Amino acid sequence: MSEMKLSPSSQQSSSQGAQESRVRRPLRIALFGFGTVGSSVARILAESRPEGLELTHVYVRSVARRRVIWLPASVQWSEDADAVLASDVDVVVELAGGLEPAGSWVRKALNAGKSVVTANKKLISVHGVELERLAAAAGGHLKYGAAVAGGIPVIPGLEQGLAGDRIERIEGILNGTCNFILSRMQEGAEYATVLVAAQAKGYAEADPTEDVGGFDARAKLAILMRLALGVEVDLDEIAPLPITAISSVDFSYARDLGCTIRQIARADSANGHVAATVGPMLVDLHSPLAWSHDTENMVIFKGHYGGDVVFSGHGAGGNATAVAVVSDLLALAHGSLRVEIPSVPAHVSGEFEVPHYIRFLVADRPGIVAEITGALAKERINIRAILQKPGYPQHALPFVVTVEPCKSSALKRALEAIRTRDYLLETPLNLQMLE
Amino acid sequence: MSEMKLSPSSQQSSSQGAQESRVRRPLRIALFGFGTVGSSVARILAESRPEGLELTHVYVRSVARRRVIWLPASVQWSEDADAVLASDVDVVVELAGGLEPAGSWVRKALNAGKSVVTANKKLISVHGVELERLAAAAGGHLKYGAAVAGGIPVIPGLEQGLAGDRIERIEGILNGTCNFILSRMQEGAEYATVLVAAQAKGYAEADPTEDVGGFDARAKLAILMRLALGVEVDLDEIAPLPITAISSVDFSYARDLGCTIRQIARADSANGHVAATVGPMLVDLHSPLAWSHDTENMVIFKGHYGGDVVFSGHGAGGNATAVAVVSDLLALAHGSLRVEIPSVPAHVSGEFEVPHYIRFLVADRPGIVAEITGALAKERINIRAILQKPGYPQHALPFVVTVEPCKSSALKRALEAIRTRDYLLETPLNLQMLE
Repeated sequence: MSEMKLSPSSQQSSSQGAQESRVRRPLRIALFGFGTVGSSVARILAESRPEGLELTHVYVRSVARRRVIWLPASVQWSEDADAVLASDVDVVVELAGGLEPAGSWVRKALNAGKSVVTANKKLISVHGVELERLAAAAGGHLKYGAAVAGGIPVIPGLEQGLAGDRIERIEGILNGTCNFILSRMQEGAEYATVLVAAQAKGYAEADPTEDVGGFDARAKLAILMRLALGVEVDLDEIAPLPITAISSVDFSYARDLGCTIRQIARADSANGHVAATVGPMLVDLHSPLAWSHDTENMVIFKGHYGGDVVFSGHGAGGNATAVAVVSDLLALAHGSLRVEIPSVPAHVSGEFEVPHYIRFLVADRPGIVAEITGALAKERINIRAILQKPGYPQHALPFVVTVEPCKSSALKRALEAIRTRDYLLETPLNLQMLE
Repeated sequence: MSEMKLSPSSQQSSSQGAQESRVRRPLRIALFGFGTVGSSVARILAESRPEGLELTHVYVRSVARRRVIWLPASVQWSEDADAVLASDVDVVVELAGGLEPAGSWVRKALNAGKSVVTANKKLISVHGVELERLAAAAGGHLKYGAAVAGGIPVIPGLEQGLAGDRIERIEGILNGTCNFILSRMQEGAEYATVLVAAQAKGYAEADPTEDVGGFDARAKLAILMRLALGVEVDLDEIAPLPITAISSVDFSYARDLGCTIRQIARADSANGHVAATVGPMLVDLHSPLAWSHDTENMVIFKGHYGGDVVFSGHGAGGNATAVAVVSDLLALAHGSLRVEIPSVPAHVSGEFEVPHYIRFLVADRPGIVAEITGALAKERINIRAILQKPGYPQHALPFVVTVEPCKSSALKRALEAIRTRDYLLETPLNLQMLE
């Protein structure tokens, strides 16, 4: 009860009373959703029996199909969401995902003064600020440690361990599906083949757009931006580049440059200017980001005072995500309130001043390099390397130009200037290089 | 006020009162110690002006020498520890280190119902359980996020993000001095030379025993063992092996084995058996532990449910440690109580069943390998590799045997059996290999 003891206006007697009653009766928990994560949460609660937590209700769409024998008989199964929300549960664990009906459930629970634990990145990235205000107004709490990087305690680490720093930059591998696909492509596999393998393993959806298009990582990045950079952003201001733009030739050229390719979500904040983007990028093979393979996630925060801090582990999967959910529940049971990090609305640009990798696919003829380098020179962009590997046909020749740090906008103008040239077989691929 | 709202026995009125008064007046903070970390804490508070925190007192041994102009004039400087402890400060930040007088200050502050934030790994590793009970009894709080791995939020991550898991293993690089020395030795430098460089940079003390002997890492490991494995251990039951046992020949052989050498603190818990040790070990060059260089720290927890989680960053230095201290202060100001992880006293063994690296230094003659491998065979220990590189003199020949996973005790018996052989120029070096 620190905030009571430490606030002169609170009365000693109430502080005492609260202290004695702490974790006196277990939190009554309702689970909304019993898929991979929901059943993992139930299993951890049943196996570990953490003090102070009691699963009392499970809402599912069809009770007949989902009843499981290893849960205590006292757990009430229900197909009636409103009835569960109107019950005497203390905490609603929302694991349905998506904006609706999850959003309505969460609002109803918070309005009733209940607390909510959710893994719903979409809901939190779009409505997080509103829902936190709702929780505060009604006296409940909203926790979403599982919404970003699953079992890796990135959000608790930020709120409880890095709140004393001023974070200037976020770089993350936030989508396990993309990391699985790209780390397999690094070993020589083709995108289409790996996608099928990822789908077979349950790592990718039948329609993988949300993941490979960068939308999932973008939602997570927006949540981290609010907690780490203190900015509330509009998702639509961040334009993701899909990893489907990458082909095996890019991995081959990346290797020549001492790099590999990962889907990176990055954001930085300096002098009131906030920039963010999500997409495949070249990462140095010596960078921690290149160590991350399969479905792993990784987040690197650069603090003004503390320097780089790296978090890594299993970002997804039922059990890892369930650990984050149960940890949030334990924090509620122990009265561990969130460290509220102040945030303000901010616009986001896609403007970074970084080195870039540009891969062209051309019908070769003399003068192409001269024209491209001329267009770059006009924007005062310095070339770092030009790579043209042998073994490709002249009529469909991939080659690469890398450039010294330059503004994304300047590079876009340079590429726009040559956009209509007939030797270009496709729009040049333009990737940031992380240093 | 979750535990109030959620506890039926607490009254609505007191909950309301506390909610309104939250962070109403800033926490009044006394800093004990104004060295590297203390002055960094003061500077962050002065520069970032985090809401809810006010530095009101600084205790130093000599006020005349330490007064600094960039702190607000309202800050009271004092050479009288008892007077500061008797003042109206809410939180004492203890940065003096060591068992005394730090321990007395912390006890006095806690007994007076104040909260304490400390970076003192020695004090917490020896008296942490007692001090936490004292805090709970008097209504204050004890936080020590800075005591392990400085600016890396390992402790908040454990308490707030991994409490829902069951941690089975800890592997950590917990001492920046040793990591600096060993990562330089990996590049070819000799121990004595690197130690002098580390001392010149302020990374190592004039007497480096605490660091290179493994005592500093052992104290941090004991703290992590309590929070991650739930066991309270006696430091003396963990026997550290100093990194001074390593020479350049070991790095050379390690490289041939695809490894390098790091000071590792490790502990695991299975079926009620707790094992822990600290010392130089061989780590695979592909392991995250090998990526860590210079003074960086890294901790890997293996969770039963969530798998491996890696934390990495700057484990020491004034600013990084100060970030952890300020974050703890912010958590207090926001009423974020610790998630109390239950722990029980436990004995620790040094028994691990892992592969080992054994380096012999012998006056060469026929039959040595036969005798050594015979002694190993008698303990049913399987040999993985025997390495004898050319270029060393016969009269002082280093060679290496690596063995398949075997119990530490069995290997000790095998080495004991040949201990008195006259061809051994020194006691064989016996290192664990991490897999």
